[in-house]
Amino acid sequence: MHITDIIIKKRDGGKLNKSEIEYVTKEYTAGNIPDYQISALLMAICLKGMDEEETENLTFAIRDSGETVDLSPIDGVKIDKHSTGGVGDKTTLIVAPLVASLGIKVAKMSGRGLGHTGGTVDKLESIKGFRTSLSKEEFFAAVNSAGLAVSGQSGNLAPADKKLYALRDVTGTVENHSLIVSSIMGKKLASGADGIVLDVKVGSGSFNKTPEDAEKLAKAMVKIGGAAGKKTAALLTDMDVPLGKAIGNALEVKEALEVLHGGGDSTLAELCTELAAVMLHLGDKGSIDECRNMAKDALASGKAFKSFVNMVKAQGGDAECIYNPDLLPTASFVYPVKAEKTGYITVSDAKEYGRASLILGAGRERKEDGVDHAAGIIMEKRRGDKVQAGEVIAYLHTNRENAIAEAARVVLSATEIGDEAPKTAPVVRGLIL
Amino acid sequence: MHITDIIIKKRDGGKLNKSEIEYVTKEYTAGNIPDYQISALLMAICLKGMDEEETENLTFAIRDSGETVDLSPIDGVKIDKHSTGGVGDKTTLIVAPLVASLGIKVAKMSGRGLGHTGGTVDKLESIKGFRTSLSKEEFFAAVNSAGLAVSGQSGNLAPADKKLYALRDVTGTVENHSLIVSSIMGKKLASGADGIVLDVKVGSGSFNKTPEDAEKLAKAMVKIGGAAGKKTAALLTDMDVPLGKAIGNALEVKEALEVLHGGGDSTLAELCTELAAVMLHLGDKGSIDECRNMAKDALASGKAFKSFVNMVKAQGGDAECIYNPDLLPTASFVYPVKAEKTGYITVSDAKEYGRASLILGAGRERKEDGVDHAAGIIMEKRRGDKVQAGEVIAYLHTNRENAIAEAARVVLSATEIGDEAPKTAPVVRGLIL
Repeated sequence: MHITDIIIKKRDGGKLNKSEIEYVTKEYTAGNIPDYQISALLMAICLKGMDEEETENLTFAIRDSGETVDLSPIDGVKIDKHSTGGVGDKTTLIVAPLVASLGIKVAKMSGRGLGHTGGTVDKLESIKGFRTSLSKEEFFAAVNSAGLAVSGQSGNLAPADKKLYALRDVTGTVENHSLIVSSIMGKKLASGADGIVLDVKVGSGSFNKTPEDAEKLAKAMVKIGGAAGKKTAALLTDMDVPLGKAIGNALEVKEALEVLHGGGDSTLAELCTELAAVMLHLGDKGSIDECRNMAKDALASGKAFKSFVNMVKAQGGDAECIYNPDLLPTASFVYPVKAEKTGYITVSDAKEYGRASLILGAGRERKEDGVDHAAGIIMEKRRGDKVQAGEVIAYLHTNRENAIAEAARVVLSATEIGDEAPKTAPVVRGLIL
Repeated sequence: MHITDIIIKKRDGGKLNKSEIEYVTKEYTAGNIPDYQISALLMAICLKGMDEEETENLTFAIRDSGETVDLSPIDGVKIDKHSTGGVGDKTTLIVAPLVASLGIKVAKMSGRGLGHTGGTVDKLESIKGFRTSLSKEEFFAAVNSAGLAVSGQSGNLAPADKKLYALRDVTGTVENHSLIVSSIMGKKLASGADGIVLDVKVGSGSFNKTPEDAEKLAKAMVKIGGAAGKKTAALLTDMDVPLGKAIGNALEVKEALEVLHGGGDSTLAELCTELAAVMLHLGDKGSIDECRNMAKDALASGKAFKSFVNMVKAQGGDAECIYNPDLLPTASFVYPVKAEKTGYITVSDAKEYGRASLILGAGRERKEDGVDHAAGIIMEKRRGDKVQAGEVIAYLHTNRENAIAEAARVVLSATEIGDEAPKTAPVVRGLIL
């Protein structure tokens, strides 16, 4: 088999067969095919597409490119959750303990990620002592004892995806349905859960700019999950506006704790309840409606919060920070951004709020950078809210004094104020089972 | 300027502007943009195309990527000739001395090339002592004294083309109109002649499979040559059947000498006469008809042959080999391939004859390989000829005894014999001025 023949076949609109896709994935991962041939193939895929069968074959080839995790040392039903990524998305911090408190095991492997804030492991690391580098044995023991654990991603899970994603990122080949599907699902299928709930975002702060794209993506992923023998479902959810009020690592942990105490931002609580309901449903805990009620009760009763505390303790974190969130890292500077006129906020652009948060130090631009756990934004007013000129719309938290002016400018231009209240849509736009 | 933005622009069907094209060409040549980004861009170009203006800008950027040769130390009008490449194409060996004998200077820089036989410099190196690595001063002096010289390509002529071509070759991005045009013309425009005659091949032994492709290519190149201030013309010529009877290095020199003596294969002589006529015409020696007659006379009178001898002497070659071609390298094995049935030859597939010649040792598969000057094929019968079963259709010349069986099989399967004489077309199919 020759890689140039495969490139030419796809360039000319041909369909790649299973053995060609497996050959490319395996040999590229092994370093036997150079980047410059794969980037030409990726561009041909972007422009000529892949059909369902090719996408499925690529997904399975990515899954099989490295280790696949065996979660059988963990008792009970294991359900995983994956978000396609958005600004202020702290749902894992809430949903994982919530479903764990209701008897579903969550063995979550999570990355650090680039972008506006850190990933879930960065957020948890704002809790003093919290360890995210667990050995396999520690990880399994933590899930068995606390019902859940969150660990930094293991070394050799879907290595083909790591190489392919890094290459796509610098060759203009990120935005392709089949490549996105196979990247997400290849990795998820390698991580060993019995079921997967996907939170597929749509809007300015996500890579799905239209509801149609998001729905197509969600349907394809659910179908492939099923073909791989995993119970899979997807929620389509809004990401035009940041999720919740907090963006940033420690700030998001605090907001998550509010929801785990039965309060907090109502949109965030609603989305977490829905995600938990679907996870519980996939774990055979009842109908979606029954599961939703169980989830609401677990938040209101403090049962979910207790589960979070158990996780923190099992992973070496200081539970004191959880009982008293003021002990979490705080920033040296807290700067209010004020509305320039009176009216209704018609746009709170998620992508731009994310950018401001990155400027303040909450995220990382390069893999090797650290994140500032204290930095971020608290949104006091968002899309749909009424504001008076001079009223605070957001607080910028940062240790970088000289970043404040630029971040404030970004926040102001990301916030449009009009005369009429905008129409608002529910955060959950659809469920695909 | 960011290379990923440029890739994405082309991926989405946008038009690249002059400064983007210059940026990519310059920075890639300088090693500041990695192969994997350029190969993605090349694939996007293959699938989305480039318009006339982009193609022209790329051509000029390639021309300007390195040294451009200044031929002003050579007196008189300098006309260059370029063939898009074919099997048995020894026209430079004939046409260059032919027009030189009529007052046009030919300062030819020629590559070695990969493929079925060597390039022009390899062919000339089958003449004992012939030097093709001339310094600039030696090269100019040789052209001034003998009227022509052929030198291996200078180090830094259109370096962007060298890098781009090597990458295209392994990424399935060779077959694109704009990339072909800019590659050929970028190099030719850097080589400093006053005029350029292009021999654009069409048929199985060339990369133009249809007359329409060849004509489109020829027109685009002639237009760009004009835009660069060079007199440019193109002949569209047949490459379904190998050109002449000989394929191989020394074998082609021998055949060229026959034509230079006023005899030889009539198709080959006809094409050379036409090419020379157009070159003379671009050099203001008269109308095409007048120039054709001058060329015929120079072949018949031995004037062109004398010019070839002058070149050989000026470049250190042993003229004895030219007066007595039996002194040129000969192969240890000469094997006759015989017709399997009686009839008319309806196909002599140029590409496959080329492949057989490569098997016999006449060409090189990798840059670092040498060529066997003695190896090749003499075609006794070709498309249109009548043959009897058992009659010799070709002689295989080789020093590789164990290659004979395979090459013979290739030649036999490249030669189709039918009951009726095929229609034959003239070798020259069109002229674009």
